[in-house]
Amino acid sequence: MAETLGFIGLGNMGEPVAENLRRAGYDLRVYNRTRSKAAALTEKGAVPVTNPAEAAPAGGVVFTMLADDRALEEVCLAEPSFVERLGKGGIHVSLSTISPATARRLAKHHEKYGVSYVASPVFGRPEAAAAAKLWVCLAGPALAKKNVEPMLKAIGQGTFDFGEDPGAANVVKLCGNYMVASTVATLAEMLVLAEKNGVSKTAMAEMIGKFSPLHHGYASIMAEGRFEPAGFRLVLGLKDINLILETAAASVTPLPLASVLHDRWLASVAKGRENLDWSAVILDVAEEAGIKSKAVPSSSD
Amino acid sequence: MAETLGFIGLGNMGEPVAENLRRAGYDLRVYNRTRSKAAALTEKGAVPVTNPAEAAPAGGVVFTMLADDRALEEVCLAEPSFVERLGKGGIHVSLSTISPATARRLAKHHEKYGVSYVASPVFGRPEAAAAAKLWVCLAGPALAKKNVEPMLKAIGQGTFDFGEDPGAANVVKLCGNYMVASTVATLAEMLVLAEKNGVSKTAMAEMIGKFSPLHHGYASIMAEGRFEPAGFRLVLGLKDINLILETAAASVTPLPLASVLHDRWLASVAKGRENLDWSAVILDVAEEAGIKSKAVPSSSD
Amino acid sequence: MAETLGFIGLGNMGEPVAENLRRAGYDLRVYNRTRSKAAALTEKGAVPVTNPAEAAPAGGVVFTMLADDRALEEVCLAEPSFVERLGKGGIHVSLSTISPATARRLAKHHEKYGVSYVASPVFGRPEAAAAAKLWVCLAGPALAKKNVEPMLKAIGQGTFDFGEDPGAANVVKLCGNYMVASTVATLAEMLVLAEKNGVSKTAMAEMIGKFSPLHHGYASIMAEGRFEPAGFRLVLGLKDINLILETAAASVTPLPLASVLHDRWLASVAKGRENLDWSAVILDVAEEAGIKSKAVPSSSD
Amino acid sequence: MAETLGFIGLGNMGEPVAENLRRAGYDLRVYNRTRSKAAALTEKGAVPVTNPAEAAPAGGVVFTMLADDRALEEVCLAEPSFVERLGKGGIHVSLSTISPATARRLAKHHEKYGVSYVASPVFGRPEAAAAAKLWVCLAGPALAKKNVEPMLKAIGQGTFDFGEDPGAANVVKLCGNYMVASTVATLAEMLVLAEKNGVSKTAMAEMIGKFSPLHHGYASIMAEGRFEPAGFRLVLGLKDINLILETAAASVTPLPLASVLHDRWLASVAKGRENLDWSAVILDVAEEAGIKSKAVPSSSD
Repeated sequence: MAETLGFIGLGNMGEPVAENLRRAGYDLRVYNRTRSKAAALTEKGAVPVTNPAEAAPAGGVVFTMLADDRALEEVCLAEPSFVERLGKGGIHVSLSTISPATARRLAKHHEKYGVSYVASPVFGRPEAAAAAKLWVCLAGPALAKKNVEPMLKAIGQGTFDFGEDPGAANVVKLCGNYMVASTVATLAEMLVLAEKNGVSKTAMAEMIGKFSPLHHGYASIMAEGRFEPAGFRLVLGLKDINLILETAAASVTPLPLASVLHDRWLASVAKGRENLDWSAVILDVAEEAGIKSKAVPSSSD
Repeated sequence: MAETLGFIGLGNMGEPVAENLRRAGYDLRVYNRTRSKAAALTEKGAVPVTNPAEAAPAGGVVFTMLADDRALEEVCLAEPSFVERLGKGGIHVSLSTISPATARRLAKHHEKYGVSYVASPVFGRPEAAAAAKLWVCLAGPALAKKNVEPMLKAIGQGTFDFGEDPGAANVVKLCGNYMVASTVATLAEMLVLAEKNGVSKTAMAEMIGKFSPLHHGYASIMAEGRFEPAGFRLVLGLKDINLILETAAASVTPLPLASVLHDRWLASVAKGRENLDWSAVILDVAEEAGIKSKAVPSSSD
Repeated sequence: MAETLGFIGLGNMGEPVAENLRRAGYDLRVYNRTRSKAAALTEKGAVPVTNPAEAAPAGGVVFTMLADDRALEEVCLAEPSFVERLGKGGIHVSLSTISPATARRLAKHHEKYGVSYVASPVFGRPEAAAAAKLWVCLAGPALAKKNVEPMLKAIGQGTFDFGEDPGAANVVKLCGNYMVASTVATLAEMLVLAEKNGVSKTAMAEMIGKFSPLHHGYASIMAEGRFEPAGFRLVLGLKDINLILETAAASVTPLPLASVLHDRWLASVAKGRENLDWSAVILDVAEEAGIKSKAVPSSSD
Repeated sequence: MAETLGFIGLGNMGEPVAENLRRAGYDLRVYNRTRSKAAALTEKGAVPVTNPAEAAPAGGVVFTMLADDRALEEVCLAEPSFVERLGKGGIHVSLSTISPATARRLAKHHEKYGVSYVASPVFGRPEAAAAAKLWVCLAGPALAKKNVEPMLKAIGQGTFDFGEDPGAANVVKLCGNYMVASTVATLAEMLVLAEKNGVSKTAMAEMIGKFSPLHHGYASIMAEGRFEPAGFRLVLGLKDINLILETAAASVTPLPLASVLHDRWLASVAKGRENLDWSAVILDVAEEAGIKSKAVPSSSD
C-alpha cells in the first residue's frame, strides 16, 4: 500500500510539487486555505481535508509550501496543529523561503512533539516545479533527511545538504535570491548607462548572453520592457531582500550592496510598481538618470 | 605577398594576440617599450622596431594593446606618431580597455590624418587570447571594420558590432567588467553571511555552480582563499571601476551599486591588497563583519 | 493637597525627570524593575510600589520612561496593567524613544480603557534631564496635552506640538536622532580624510566649532579619542537607526544615507565596540582607510 | 605710500573681497576676464589691467579668486604669467576652493620663480565677503603667511592656520563644504520621512532650529520650497563633492556617505535642477519616495 503524505499550501509552487509526489505513487491528503485550489488534485485522487491538522498522518510526513514566515508559523502553531498530530517520528518537510531564525524556532518547537523539522527551501519557478526540476537546499536531522530522500527525488533534480542546523538551508536559499536580485540591479545600471551613451540595450543584452545565461534572461526582459505579466513580482523581491537584511542584522554582518538593493526596490514600490516583474527596477534607475519612463499599463492579460 | 601589420604593446594580452595574427599569415612589425618582450615574436619572424611610428605601414593597419588611457594617448600623440605615418586610408585597431571619452577624442584626432579609429576592446584573459578565443566589442567606420574583419577572426571567436560611435564599444566593454566586479562583490557578501551563519563556503560555492558558471569560478576562489597569484589584480579592478564611474558622471547617470564597489575596492587597496586577485575584496567584507583575516603571504611563486 | 502621579522607569533619564516632578510639588508613586534604583526618590518622599499597576492613580496621570518598544509594551499589556487601573479620564505620558507604529498601537489600546496616550519623547542627555532642560516632542489628544502642560513645564525648557497623531512625535524624535547620527558619521569621514592628508584633527575640530556647535562637540571627542565612558552607547545608536529604517520601510521611504549609517554602526558592533561612545564609529572609517586603530581599553572608570 | 596689490577674479566673491582690501588702504591693480566687472572698483580708484600678468607688483602680493582648478591653473601658467612677474619674494594669496593636489602642484611651480603660494580658501557667502566676515583656512610658508596677515584681517573675521603644506587648507575647506552638503542631504531625507508620516515640515524645521542653526536654515528653505533664486547652485555643489571624492581617492580613503551624496546630486542634475539651490535635492528624495514634485519654474527674478 502506498504511503500517505500530507501537503499544506497549494499555490503556484505547491500545487505542481504535490502533483509530482502523487505521480511518484504517494497518496496525498491536501489542505489549502482557498479550498478550490485543491480541486485538480482531488480529481486525481488526493484527499482534501478541512484543516491543516487533518492532513497529518501520525508518525508520517507533511510537506508545507506557504507564502511567508507568518503563514507558516500560523499553520504550525494552530490548535490543534499538524505538528502535534504528526507526533513522535513525524517529519515536516518545509519548502517555503523563510528566515533562518523562524526555521530554528520552529525546529525547536517541533522537537517537543517528537517531530523532525527538515528545512527544504527550493530554487526554481513554477515551470521548474511542474517539470520536477527544482533544486532543494536541505538541512535538518540526518535520519529524517534520509527518510524523505525518495520524495525529494520526485520533485527536483538534486539536493544540496547543508548539515543539521535547519537555519543553514534558509541562509543558502536567501543568498541565492540575493545573488539574483543583485544581478538584476546591476544589469539595470548597465543598461541605463548604455542607453545614456547611445548604445542599443538589445545589442548589449545579446552580448551578455555569451558570458552569463543568468544575466542574459533578465537583460532581455529589460531591453524589451516586458514587465507584465510578472515572472517574479517586485514586491516579493523586496520581501526576500528584507529577509536577507534581517538575517544579516541578526548575525551582525553589514551588507552594503544589499542595502542599496533594498532602497532601489523600496523606491520602485513607492512608485507603484509592486506588481510588475522585479526587473522593472530598471525604470527607477532610468528616472534617476533623467530618462522619463513611458507609462506602463496597469494591468495585463 | 603577405600583408604587413603593425602591433604596439606586447604585454600579457598583446603578445598572444600578435602571435595569432602572425600564425594567420600576417607579417608583423612589433613595438614594445621594454624591448625584450618582443624577443619571442622576433624569433618567429616579426620585425622589431625602435619606436611606435616605425611600426606603421603607410595606408595599412596598426593594432595597439596598452595598459590604460594615458599610455595609449602618449603613443598616439607622440611626434612623429604612428597615426601620422599610417596616413590616408590607414586603420588603427585599438584593443585596450579605455574610457569612451578617450576613444572619441582619439577618433577625432585620427581623422585629421585620414586614419580610421576602430574601437575593439576585448573580453578574455591571457589564456583566451592565446587560444584565439577573445570576444571583440567593435565600433567605428563601417568600411574600416569590414577591412579588419579577417584579422579579428584570427584573434577571437566573435565580434559584437555596436555601430559607428567609437565610444560605444568601450561603454560596452566597461559594462562587462562592471558586471563581473559586481558579481565578485555580491559573492563576497554572500559567502561572509554564510560563514557568519555557520554555513560552509565550499558547499555554497558548489551549489552556486549549478546556477551560474560566472559566479561559480569566483565563489570557488574565495572559498579556498586563493588570492595569489592574481588572475586579475585588485588594483586593476579599481581602475576599471573608476572608468565606469567617470563614464557615468560624464553622461550624468547615477550608479549607486558602482559607488559601493568603488568604496570596497578602495578600502582593499588602503589595506595593502592591491596585488592580490580582486576576489580578495571578500577579506574586507569579512573584517567589517568582525572576522579577523589570516595574514596573506605577501608574495607567491 | 498635591496631585499624585505615577512614574514607571527610573533609569539614567527617568530618575532625574521624576525628581523634577517631585520638586515641582507632585506626589509620586514610583516603580522600577530593579527596586534599588527607587531608593533616592523614596528617601525624598516618593512612594515605591511593587508592580506598575499600583503606580496608577485612577483617572490620573502616569509617566513612563523605558528602554525600548518591547519594555514599554510589556508594561502596558501586563495583567493587570497600569492602563486599566488609570481607567476613564486617565493620561499616559510616554517619554520613551520608540517607533511611531508602537505609539499608534498603544494609543488604540489605551482608548479601550478611556485612557489618553500622550506621546512625549524627549531630546536631551541625563544632565539636561537633571537641569529640567529637556525639549519635549508632543502629540496626542488636545485636552490631555493641555492637562499635562504644567508637568512638562517642570521637566523641560519647551515643547513642540505635532498634533493629534501619537506617531508624529516619535517620527520627529527619531528624525532628530538620525540628524545627530548622520552628523557623527559625516564628521568621522571628514576627520579621517583630514588625517590621511596630514591635517591635524584637533585643529579641524576647533575650526568646526566656529560653524556648528552640534558638530563641534562630536569632532572634539573624536579628535581626542575619548570613547569611554560613553556619552551615548554605540549599540543604542544602532537601535535608533533601526527604528528610523523600520519607520521608513513602513511608510515606503527610501533613505540611502540612513542605510549607510546602519552598515557603519553594524560593522562597529561586529568589531566589539557596542559599549563605546557612538562617535567611535570613526575607528571603523579609519580602518577602512588602512589606518590601524590603537587598542581601546575594554573597560573604564 | 600705500602698498599696491594685484587682484585677479572679480566675481560674486572676488569683487567684495577686493573692495575690502581697497577700503583697508591698499592700492589695487585688478583683472577680470569680463572687463566690465572691474568698473565699480575702477571708479573708486583701482587700476584695471588688460592681462593677469600686469596685475603683479614685482616682489609684491597678488590675490586670486577664480571659479575652479582649471581657471586658476590657466592664469598661473599663462605666458607670461603673473607668477613670473611677481618673482623673487612675491606672494600669491589663493582664495579659490580647489583640490589640494592642484594647490600642491602650483606651490611647486611657484617656487621656481621664488614666489610663495599661500593657500587661503574661505568660508562664507557673498554677503559675508562684503561684510568682511569670511573665515580663512590658511596654509603655506610661515613668513609669507605672516606678511599677508594684515590683508587677511581686512577681509575676514579670522584665520585657521593648518601649517606649511598648501594642500592642507584646501582639504579643510573641502571638508567644510562636505559637512554642509551632508547636512543638506540628511535634512532632505528627514523632511521627506516626516511628510510621508503626516508631520508638518514647517513644524519640524522650527524644532530643528533649537538644536542646530546650521540645519535650521536649510530645513526652512526646504520646508518652503524656496529653491530659486539659488543661494548656492546645485551644480556647484556637485563640483565640490567631486573634489572631495577626488581628494579621497588620491589619499585612498573610502567615504561611503560622500558617494551617496554624489549620486543624489548627479540624479538632481540629470533631472534638470542644476541651477536650483542645492537644497533642491529634497525633490529627488521625495520622488524616490513616490511623491510627485510640483513643477518648479524654470527661471526666476
